[in-house]
Amino acid sequence: MSLVVVGSIAIDTLETPQGRANDVPGGAASYFAVAASFFTPVKMVGIVGSDFPRRELDWFASLGIDLAGVEVRAGKSLRWSGRYHEDMNVRDTLSFAANVFDAFAPELPEAYRDVPFVFLANIAPSLQARVLDQVRAPRLVGADTMNLWIDTARGELDALLRRVPLLMVNDEEARLLSGERNMVRAARRILAMGPESVMIKRGEYGALYFSGETVFSVPAYPLEEVFDPTGAGDSFAGGVMGYLARSGDVSPGGIRRAIVYGSVLASFTVEAFGLDRLRRLTRGEIDQRYRQFVSLTSFDVP
Amino acid sequence: MSLVVVGSIAIDTLETPQGRANDVPGGAASYFAVAASFFTPVKMVGIVGSDFPRRELDWFASLGIDLAGVEVRAGKSLRWSGRYHEDMNVRDTLSFAANVFDAFAPELPEAYRDVPFVFLANIAPSLQARVLDQVRAPRLVGADTMNLWIDTARGELDALLRRVPLLMVNDEEARLLSGERNMVRAARRILAMGPESVMIKRGEYGALYFSGETVFSVPAYPLEEVFDPTGAGDSFAGGVMGYLARSGDVSPGGIRRAIVYGSVLASFTVEAFGLDRLRRLTRGEIDQRYRQFVSLTSFDVP
Repeated sequence: MSLVVVGSIAIDTLETPQGRANDVPGGAASYFAVAASFFTPVKMVGIVGSDFPRRELDWFASLGIDLAGVEVRAGKSLRWSGRYHEDMNVRDTLSFAANVFDAFAPELPEAYRDVPFVFLANIAPSLQARVLDQVRAPRLVGADTMNLWIDTARGELDALLRRVPLLMVNDEEARLLSGERNMVRAARRILAMGPESVMIKRGEYGALYFSGETVFSVPAYPLEEVFDPTGAGDSFAGGVMGYLARSGDVSPGGIRRAIVYGSVLASFTVEAFGLDRLRRLTRGEIDQRYRQFVSLTSFDVP
Repeated sequence: MSLVVVGSIAIDTLETPQGRANDVPGGAASYFAVAASFFTPVKMVGIVGSDFPRRELDWFASLGIDLAGVEVRAGKSLRWSGRYHEDMNVRDTLSFAANVFDAFAPELPEAYRDVPFVFLANIAPSLQARVLDQVRAPRLVGADTMNLWIDTARGELDALLRRVPLLMVNDEEARLLSGERNMVRAARRILAMGPESVMIKRGEYGALYFSGETVFSVPAYPLEEVFDPTGAGDSFAGGVMGYLARSGDVSPGGIRRAIVYGSVLASFTVEAFGLDRLRRLTRGEIDQRYRQFVSLTSFDVP
């Protein structure tokens, strides 16, 4: 089944202790769509400037990503530049320019509106709501958000959360949103705000999933070298939603498998700068790493 | 099979955001022994002052803990006082007095020397080595250490590591010992120092196990309330070694089960101050939580 993602498409400059990458394609929707494309066709909604490399859009298209919802507008693309510290859990934004993204008012092509799986990557909650207003009867809507909206658009965010069955945030966002340090209590508070389920991304510590009385935990894949954490969370979301859309299986077991696939995609993303690792990733490698997650986590009952 | 533990037995004063406990029994060997006693008889080696409550020693004995190796000496017991922050991963030592522990020179009763499982809790590496000199043909020796010895007794510690098949340290100690931030590289460096296996304790993020090419990861049990993290790592070690000694199964599968039991014991310890939760813990609760770890972590292959 097909999947819509709405979110930022950017040109990034990245500095990590491992090196530097200038003017590479990025943005939440890009990482999400490329990760999800390993499982299912993806329909993308976003905006880029006339400076966004044509060859990158062509690459997206070659992955089965439908770009009918991506507006190319005269001007510059959203640009972000960031630097990671030795402890890669910490990063500084060096510069940010919204550019054409300032004019983003998502408009879904007619062919997108009946799509069963929808992901609202991190953009202003009012824009996320605008997308929800345009889809007819989605089977599953997932959303991300960030500190900025929790701090500055709380009313819109609260309204949105009542319409989002699956929230995916990182641990810091979960704490800020809930006012709780403890992850179990944070998740409980978030579930009381509307979502039926919440996935909490914890970087090198993996991910937690809460739904009703269910808790599921998956570690991050232990990598000897993390090159660039940019896009790990969005790749995770792409893997999760991509697998769910592909299988159509939103049973508890299906959701667990989706979370492992999300973790697999995130683990590949951080192995190189930007989207580089995903450029040469194969479905065979994904399935092999999935099996490594089995061996990483399995134990039996005595 | 029986198990020897050598380490500190202390009187602790604990402050956490949840409250305060004055003059409660503690020390690595106490947490270890009580946790392990749910699986197997434990022989304890340590030293206490004449102020150590008789009723606590009687309680240890009632758990099947052999105290023949515990010297009671005129004077005060080791005393430690610590305060945990809102982020319970951070703690300050408010006071420390070694007292009779300064004179600790472990001497194993004859009946201890043929014991197959030995755990060297965190004490000076020269004292840990002294214990190893006294055991005849142990099947498995595990050890812990701490930043102090990594910084101040590196030669003795390096010599000890060549004699210790299983090292259990926390993530900060693993980083300091290896000089590597990344846990996979840290583990590889530690395995090159002598141990066949290393278990890295990560508090609320669970534990990692490395041995040869094997990596195993288990999350911490997600608790709504962490009362007091004191002794979590020692309870983990006690659960691991206790289960291994009980089952005699040091196969890869047996070690995974042992790590889960260690995680179960640690998860109970932090639910109350000091040893209080372990005082009223039952074997039935342990097995029930083990099954909860299964549901917390399990997923299948599509």
